Amino acid sequence: MPRAVVMRGAGERVVVGDFDRPTLQCGAVLLETIYSDVCGTDCHLFHGRLAGVPYPIIPGHVSVGRIAEMNGEVHDVDGRRFEIGDVVTFLDVHETCGQCWFCLVAKATTRCPKRRVYGITYSADEGLLGGWSEAIYLKPGVKILRLPENVSPQTFISGGCGLPTAFHAVDRATLRMGDTVVVQGSGPVGLCAVALARLAGAGHVTIVGAPDQRLDLAVEFGADEAVSIERTTPEERVERVRGLTGGRGADVCIEASGSPAAVVEGMELTRDNGTYVIVGQYTDCGSVQINPHVHINRKHLDIRGCWGSDFSHVYRALIMMSRSVGTVPWEKMITRHYTLDEAGQALEDVERLRVVKAVIEP
Amino acid sequence: MPRAVVMRGAGERVVVGDFDRPTLQCGAVLLETIYSDVCGTDCHLFHGRLAGVPYPIIPGHVSVGRIAEMNGEVHDVDGRRFEIGDVVTFLDVHETCGQCWFCLVAKATTRCPKRRVYGITYSADEGLLGGWSEAIYLKPGVKILRLPENVSPQTFISGGCGLPTAFHAVDRATLRMGDTVVVQGSGPVGLCAVALARLAGAGHVTIVGAPDQRLDLAVEFGADEAVSIERTTPEERVERVRGLTGGRGADVCIEASGSPAAVVEGMELTRDNGTYVIVGQYTDCGSVQINPHVHINRKHLDIRGCWGSDFSHVYRALIMMSRSVGTVPWEKMITRHYTLDEAGQALEDVERLRVVKAVIEP
Amino acid sequence: MPRAVVMRGAGERVVVGDFDRPTLQCGAVLLETIYSDVCGTDCHLFHGRLAGVPYPIIPGHVSVGRIAEMNGEVHDVDGRRFEIGDVVTFLDVHETCGQCWFCLVAKATTRCPKRRVYGITYSADEGLLGGWSEAIYLKPGVKILRLPENVSPQTFISGGCGLPTAFHAVDRATLRMGDTVVVQGSGPVGLCAVALARLAGAGHVTIVGAPDQRLDLAVEFGADEAVSIERTTPEERVERVRGLTGGRGADVCIEASGSPAAVVEGMELTRDNGTYVIVGQYTDCGSVQINPHVHINRKHLDIRGCWGSDFSHVYRALIMMSRSVGTVPWEKMITRHYTLDEAGQALEDVERLRVVKAVIEP
Amino acid sequence: MPRAVVMRGAGERVVVGDFDRPTLQCGAVLLETIYSDVCGTDCHLFHGRLAGVPYPIIPGHVSVGRIAEMNGEVHDVDGRRFEIGDVVTFLDVHETCGQCWFCLVAKATTRCPKRRVYGITYSADEGLLGGWSEAIYLKPGVKILRLPENVSPQTFISGGCGLPTAFHAVDRATLRMGDTVVVQGSGPVGLCAVALARLAGAGHVTIVGAPDQRLDLAVEFGADEAVSIERTTPEERVERVRGLTGGRGADVCIEASGSPAAVVEGMELTRDNGTYVIVGQYTDCGSVQINPHVHINRKHLDIRGCWGSDFSHVYRALIMMSRSVGTVPWEKMITRHYTLDEAGQALEDVERLRVVKAVIEP
Repeated sequence: MPRAVVMRGAGERVVVGDFDRPTLQCGAVLLETIYSDVCGTDCHLFHGRLAGVPYPIIPGHVSVGRIAEMNGEVHDVDGRRFEIGDVVTFLDVHETCGQCWFCLVAKATTRCPKRRVYGITYSADEGLLGGWSEAIYLKPGVKILRLPENVSPQTFISGGCGLPTAFHAVDRATLRMGDTVVVQGSGPVGLCAVALARLAGAGHVTIVGAPDQRLDLAVEFGADEAVSIERTTPEERVERVRGLTGGRGADVCIEASGSPAAVVEGMELTRDNGTYVIVGQYTDCGSVQINPHVHINRKHLDIRGCWGSDFSHVYRALIMMSRSVGTVPWEKMITRHYTLDEAGQALEDVERLRVVKAVIEP
Repeated sequence: MPRAVVMRGAGERVVVGDFDRPTLQCGAVLLETIYSDVCGTDCHLFHGRLAGVPYPIIPGHVSVGRIAEMNGEVHDVDGRRFEIGDVVTFLDVHETCGQCWFCLVAKATTRCPKRRVYGITYSADEGLLGGWSEAIYLKPGVKILRLPENVSPQTFISGGCGLPTAFHAVDRATLRMGDTVVVQGSGPVGLCAVALARLAGAGHVTIVGAPDQRLDLAVEFGADEAVSIERTTPEERVERVRGLTGGRGADVCIEASGSPAAVVEGMELTRDNGTYVIVGQYTDCGSVQINPHVHINRKHLDIRGCWGSDFSHVYRALIMMSRSVGTVPWEKMITRHYTLDEAGQALEDVERLRVVKAVIEP
Repeated sequence: MPRAVVMRGAGERVVVGDFDRPTLQCGAVLLETIYSDVCGTDCHLFHGRLAGVPYPIIPGHVSVGRIAEMNGEVHDVDGRRFEIGDVVTFLDVHETCGQCWFCLVAKATTRCPKRRVYGITYSADEGLLGGWSEAIYLKPGVKILRLPENVSPQTFISGGCGLPTAFHAVDRATLRMGDTVVVQGSGPVGLCAVALARLAGAGHVTIVGAPDQRLDLAVEFGADEAVSIERTTPEERVERVRGLTGGRGADVCIEASGSPAAVVEGMELTRDNGTYVIVGQYTDCGSVQINPHVHINRKHLDIRGCWGSDFSHVYRALIMMSRSVGTVPWEKMITRHYTLDEAGQALEDVERLRVVKAVIEP
Repeated sequence: MPRAVVMRGAGERVVVGDFDRPTLQCGAVLLETIYSDVCGTDCHLFHGRLAGVPYPIIPGHVSVGRIAEMNGEVHDVDGRRFEIGDVVTFLDVHETCGQCWFCLVAKATTRCPKRRVYGITYSADEGLLGGWSEAIYLKPGVKILRLPENVSPQTFISGGCGLPTAFHAVDRATLRMGDTVVVQGSGPVGLCAVALARLAGAGHVTIVGAPDQRLDLAVEFGADEAVSIERTTPEERVERVRGLTGGRGADVCIEASGSPAAVVEGMELTRDNGTYVIVGQYTDCGSVQINPHVHINRKHLDIRGCWGSDFSHVYRALIMMSRSVGTVPWEKMITRHYTLDEAGQALEDVERLRVVKAVIEP
């Protein structure tokens, strides 16, 4: 009888409930959860800020666990069979249809209308389909990945869902060796973006964020400069970044802040004909005044919205994490572990920025 | 003693003055002007809306003429020598330095700070460096192009500076065969963008603009649908375009309207993961409210500012014009010819949208 | 009791057999065949030149038919339901897995090892899975496309499998407006490539091939120049193409010849830093001597192999065909129609180049 | 009276001669040479294997020196003025015209027919235009770069001309984070490619080369695996690399071997739809048999020839070198320093692979 956290609706207190141990369909896998991520999206879910969420849900979209049970043979993307006891993670996005216009013509699978997401758009009434639970039911066809040998469950979960999100953003930036990079925002996505930009050949990385502990961590993750938004005005930040980049602004700027106001500032932080990736505006936090002549047209700017991530991002992000275990102190991102019963506290701590990364350990 | 129109400063009436016939430096060419373009930028110049303009100037950045005099041998890009009497045009942008960071590292030559522009950033005190003149002095190194055999001076000037601008925008859109395209704006840039999008393999082209005569011309230029902004609300236009594109919005949208409000609308006219090129915000017409979550991030949108044009755009645009002389009625874009003495009238007619394209015929 | 052509093995005479009318699985569709394509691949199949073919097979990979029966609701990619009587085609490639490394990480679905192809890698023992048949069984999930209103079955089949193949090649060439293009080979793929290159904005198109009737057709399809390989040496052809392109060679060259020797020639026909797409080497016709210094490295050449096609190519190719019904005389590609009983004759006529395109009309 | 090495013609012994100290044109700079590179190209020059070389020449295309004299103000690309005593390098390629079709339309400046190269296509009769000399005359407009603070002249010259060449190759490979990479060849270009591929985010790097000391150095530079060509057959190497890449071959393969036979092997080492960059075929070493069906078409391969390098490659390569001073033991590439009088010995040692990198120290 696995226990799991249930979020019952917008603003309602989360509770822990008992679930029946599921019977596995052919091709399904039951994971014994080791860790599950708590991220800003979970706070949005708690407040009911995302549309189309089928409450009650079991939160937790990025998780790592041990295979406890399988029905039939299940293989990884390289054709290697999984065994009981394997430590794995999985792509939270499932049921991408492969049949619709977005899948087949645009090849923009993160915009497939059929896709559903563990911990977000599956209901608790449908089963153990979220990670804040002692067990997770992986439906047939869910894409499962082995952790690389040198990536422990703890290291993996320190990246959490910020890692593939940041990977997608850095990938979409088509960074070139030697580029100057600015990352706006020092939460998990921003910190992972700093690390990945460095690993991908950035010539200089500046983090713009707060509070100071996060900026210090960003420096440990590879940032060359840290600019606190608590002690600077937007104008000062633009001047500072331009000073670091020959007066021009950054070749690449990655927005991972969640603040609409950061978007205008980011356009100014980016050089003419530079690339600005916007990945941090995951929920609707309102509008901002933009001057299309000054900020876009005259600058000959490339702006790239970045939504969701797909299997390739997780697959490649794991490789990069494995590559950098010795050089990036990934685990320092985790501030605290929480039991299932402490999940409400975890949400509150994330929301109030008391922690960088909260991890559920069922 | 060539006569030329002189714009003396913001808001001052234009006058016609007499200039000395210049002595040619080695490698220089003197053109006898056949036609010169009047475009929206000239109205901005008249009102002093562009920064850094060294009044007095001779307006006219895109022109066509006959070679009247040369000092030494001058060759085109293919190495063919020009002869007295050749009918040619030239790239208005000159003195791109080839030595600065933008030229050498970013390879973004349209952002070179040294570049100067005939008819805009050269002063009349420096010579006959604008097209509203009986003669144009082409400094050594100015990039001169022969008109293709089947492109008459009149056909060429009908495209004017809108043609390379639209070419750059369509090129930057990386259109794929069969794409649905929306063009916002039915001035010369928008009309040229319609023609070029069709010639580049668009599957369906919608023009959004006004007044009706321009929309009718857009249909002659290849638009499949025309949506009048005089008889629709922005919401109706979004609904209309989505109806034409399977509910999704256009694969590619090209903004050539000059209106900041059009930018938000354009983001909504473009499908998720589509491409939105912003080329029409040539001067600062103010700001607009954008919701970065709704309009950029969640849409996984590509937004590409597009500034200026370079030699390759003019070179290739001429090929496309030559290709389409029989299918696109280019010359219909010209509403009226004006003498040098009528230049003030031309500016007024362009500003009040009384004409699609005004042409100076010295 | 539908009748179908059966190819029993390498070199064996094709026969016509009777098949049971299949019972439809849920989501399956039965097509009443209108036309099916005969292409060079069918000759290769006849001679046993392709590996892994599960003889006996029913040939015919690109076909058009009328929906005779459906089990349950079936929708197109835009979500519109198919009805009995609809005239449709379908993607011959099926069972692309969406689960393997090539599908998920490389996103190179045409290299998915699970994919199977109607008329090629399905056995006649598995059912009516080829187009040279009175009826075709479309398994659940086969991707079906409606013909555009102005594209008749006859027009559609004139493109046959050459159209999506050529589409993929031209798409992969990332042609820019005004580019000079050379197409090597004047079979169906080459002719379609000529038409599509023109529709995609090529500035100048040269076809290199034989015999003369095909070159004449290429000119009707949009070629500006035709060079016969029957009356020229490779050196003369290189000189001719360079003469047409300022001495440089073509910006883009598309190999659709099937001859290994053409590959070296194609590298010479392409300009330095140009793009060379190789799409015509569908079977192993042996090797050729290449000088990597002269032909690739010093030329800074881009060479792009092009294998198979996916749904987007067929979808977009249909749009382009619909666009060009009035300007490209597609149907002239069809030389003759054949009944099922004449299939052996069709194979022989294709092999001996007696016809441009042979069509099976059951 | 600066002394300089003179190469008088194909196969003739190099001599050291005395040159007049040049009078500087306005904008020219005189460098006091610290180090100059000896590379494989110099051996080719010695044997007369390159066309169009205006013997006698002063060899040495990549060098580092101290500014001894300037005529007028000279600035770097960021606008900072050079001072006497500054330690700098410069782009060996000069006189790229900025006026021809390749410069302006193709934007392929490394194919500009006007470009000339210090140490290769300038004659000794024209002055001190090569690096194996006590002084180097930098003509007005030669693009000069300051060494970054933490890059010593010795570190810089250890990369030599292999560094920008490898940079261009890795840049052209459009490597994505996590890609598996194979580098063919363990000379200076191959070793630099290993280091840069790692710095650019490669997931796994294999070097294929010889002798063992170079492979050991490759491992120090970041290779995960080293495969000796002295102890394996081509078939074994293909099998080995496929074993390291899930049976598929590498995502990216970079040829830096100089051997035509390596090109076929490289196509087999690269996975289907992978990218193969050919940069090592700098001179004509003959032809090789390629099967276009097997090696290119069916593989859906991308092959990219890579010729020369431009300013951006040197500029960015210097940033990457500065970035990696602590992690890549660049200087270990230098086996021995040679005086001007020992230049003949240096050529012989490079040719016989007795050294990895030979450096001239005048």
